[in-house]
Amino acid sequence: MPLVRVHNFSISLDGFGSGEPQSLESPFGHAGQRLHEWMFATSFWDREAGQRGVDAVFAARHELGFGAEIMGANKFGPPGWQDDPDWQGWWGDEPPFHTPTYVLTHRPRPPLEMAGGTTFHFLDASPAEAIAVAREAAGDLDVRLGGGASVVRDFVAAGLVDHLHLVVVPIVLGRGARLWDGLEALEDTFDIESVSSPSGVTHLTFTKRG
Amino acid sequence: MPLVRVHNFSISLDGFGSGEPQSLESPFGHAGQRLHEWMFATSFWDREAGQRGVDAVFAARHELGFGAEIMGANKFGPPGWQDDPDWQGWWGDEPPFHTPTYVLTHRPRPPLEMAGGTTFHFLDASPAEAIAVAREAAGDLDVRLGGGASVVRDFVAAGLVDHLHLVVVPIVLGRGARLWDGLEALEDTFDIESVSSPSGVTHLTFTKRG
Repeated sequence: MPLVRVHNFSISLDGFGSGEPQSLESPFGHAGQRLHEWMFATSFWDREAGQRGVDAVFAARHELGFGAEIMGANKFGPPGWQDDPDWQGWWGDEPPFHTPTYVLTHRPRPPLEMAGGTTFHFLDASPAEAIAVAREAAGDLDVRLGGGASVVRDFVAAGLVDHLHLVVVPIVLGRGARLWDGLEALEDTFDIESVSSPSGVTHLTFTKRG
Repeated sequence: MPLVRVHNFSISLDGFGSGEPQSLESPFGHAGQRLHEWMFATSFWDREAGQRGVDAVFAARHELGFGAEIMGANKFGPPGWQDDPDWQGWWGDEPPFHTPTYVLTHRPRPPLEMAGGTTFHFLDASPAEAIAVAREAAGDLDVRLGGGASVVRDFVAAGLVDHLHLVVVPIVLGRGARLWDGLEALEDTFDIESVSSPSGVTHLTFTKRG
């Protein structure tokens, strides 16, 4: 059975996946780009000049074997994007998903076909319903769960995630969107590994037990 | 100038230094011994059979170069120990501190001299006042800040800690005494390093910039 996987989800030492407030100018609030600098430095982001060490090896898993993505409304746009009929996401004409991409929102709109194989579908659905729709679209391939923090949290808590890759960045944000709430005893259902990188981040993998 | 250091302070992935509720039977609440199993497996704890790898190397720093310890009331005893005039701490006749040891409490009692060089002094004082008293006692040696979570948090927030060693254990406690609250932007004043151990824990060191 294909898997539901989360990759490259970055959090601060204190567990925030985003700072605050989130806006068009600052999608990650006071975190700025700090949660993702580790990724910008890799060949995953910069194929010519990026480094090819442990961070790059982990980052590249984001691209491999996916037939659909699910993301929360907060990943698709800044607060209030639902009021802008022309908003097409952060990623320009050719978003980096290249598959059907399901955006969870209580205010669905018609599908949006972009260049490069990404079609955004807007879905007012429970986590389990969204997974069912995305699995159907993905066929033999896996489903990527794209975040943000509350979406990862809700899907993990509902037992719908098979593999989770977190990247702990050595900063203390103090406020924002917290990942860990409600995930007590995750170690009972996942094997957890940890590897620190020379860049300063620590990669955590959670693999669901069979 | 001698340093104020924290060593072997274990937290869960979600940043709890203890579970709940804390009691005589369960000093770490629902965390049980899970936050400290990494340490029990080392030569620091078991000189004969313990392992001598990265965990042991870090753990041994707890013993080296200290002339005094400061701890919070919650480390000295279970809730309500202040009502028991016979309570002498968790550690039996010969506690493992071997120096003057200052217990912060709003209900001070006379000093308690134990075997092996540990004398407990009970202090109703601010973090800065406690540091001044402990530094005086420690002379040329460092002062160990022993925890719990709220004591580490308060002293770090007050700028009184020079070096902090945390051990992140791969469990999600969900509730208890949280370390990180109020420590936003710690990375501005500390150099932070991270190293994962084969045991599954990750050691974090915070070294105050000069």
